[in-house]
Amino acid sequence: MARYNFKRIPDHVGVIPDGNRRWAQKHGMEKEEGYSYGIEPGFRLYELCIELGISELTLYGFTQDNTKRPTVQRKAFQKACVDAVEILAGKDADLLVVGNTQSNMFPKELLPYTGERVRFGKGLIKVNFLVNYSWQWDLHQALSAVSSGNKNVTDLIGSSLISRVDLMVRWGGRRRLSGFLPVQSIYSDFYIVEALWPDFKEEHLLEALGWYQEQDITLGG
Amino acid sequence: MARYNFKRIPDHVGVIPDGNRRWAQKHGMEKEEGYSYGIEPGFRLYELCIELGISELTLYGFTQDNTKRPTVQRKAFQKACVDAVEILAGKDADLLVVGNTQSNMFPKELLPYTGERVRFGKGLIKVNFLVNYSWQWDLHQALSAVSSGNKNVTDLIGSSLISRVDLMVRWGGRRRLSGFLPVQSIYSDFYIVEALWPDFKEEHLLEALGWYQEQDITLGG
Repeated sequence: MARYNFKRIPDHVGVIPDGNRRWAQKHGMEKEEGYSYGIEPGFRLYELCIELGISELTLYGFTQDNTKRPTVQRKAFQKACVDAVEILAGKDADLLVVGNTQSNMFPKELLPYTGERVRFGKGLIKVNFLVNYSWQWDLHQALSAVSSGNKNVTDLIGSSLISRVDLMVRWGGRRRLSGFLPVQSIYSDFYIVEALWPDFKEEHLLEALGWYQEQDITLGG
Repeated sequence: MARYNFKRIPDHVGVIPDGNRRWAQKHGMEKEEGYSYGIEPGFRLYELCIELGISELTLYGFTQDNTKRPTVQRKAFQKACVDAVEILAGKDADLLVVGNTQSNMFPKELLPYTGERVRFGKGLIKVNFLVNYSWQWDLHQALSAVSSGNKNVTDLIGSSLISRVDLMVRWGGRRRLSGFLPVQSIYSDFYIVEALWPDFKEEHLLEALGWYQEQDITLGG
């Protein structure tokens, strides 16, 4: 912590690691080759978040909308998600994978991490990984659970184990949520990094945090 | 139209007219005095949207969270919403007011505009006005309607008559959605204007549109 001095750190950071395909094309590769270059940056981000004392990190793996892309791309991002979790299993995190497990687009290797959190090592940070996620699926879980009475919608959605997101950081220049946890990101502060995700630098997150600590958090009050 | 030449115009623009209180303080007034200065800019925006051929405009009036503010502020923004609708009634729009009408925070004067659209004059543009709105209320409408079968969540929410938002423009520098139509803003492109809302200039929207037309719209595909 001595390396950094922020006056306020978000509890929960959401990440949209976008730009893998554009990065691959920029480097003369096929689009689908970009995804594997997105894994190592994710672990640098993970290490930095632990060092900073961030307690929860949610990463966009892929969405049900994304699975409409060409098969070669779909297989590449599915594999990148499985590979990332295999590496994480050797580290220190409490992992929860959230997404539609009922579809054959969901990688079976990740089923053990759905439903409840699984501890790896010392469990130094909560990591939520959105895999075959869709906001429609998320909200429909609430609709199908509603018979249980007059509960709060946040307790009924598919991603109910994931807390409110304080800071959303999106790499790759696009300024949109793309369906990332619509309920939890209601009051998220939104920071855009122009760089493509495989070009991740620690400075990107540090700049986002420097901006975040100056924001006036009112939650509408 | 001759004055402007955009290669792509959003069908539906969402607007978060933030910064009225900060503007009032900057000008030596009490915070609550800012809201009345937010009405005239809204009508300049409305006229510009019609000229540009934008077909639907959604404006944030106030949220249920906002009603927790001091009473003098709450009364001021409630009055500003009623005043704005009275002025709009003399113009050309199809108005829909969306929000929780069951609460006494909802201004009774606006009840005639809830439930279905009301045409004013030639109805040149759809105007949606979020009044005593809350995303929890919106989603809970879906939960309470779910008994009707396996419908899509977008058909069941409280704001189901409001279409997908293509471009979200927020004045006042904050970079967050603050609960603005979470379902419809899933894929919205998000543009922030640093100026406070009462300092609205036509150029702000034109710059947002100039940026929007360059965005790559994929809807996750």
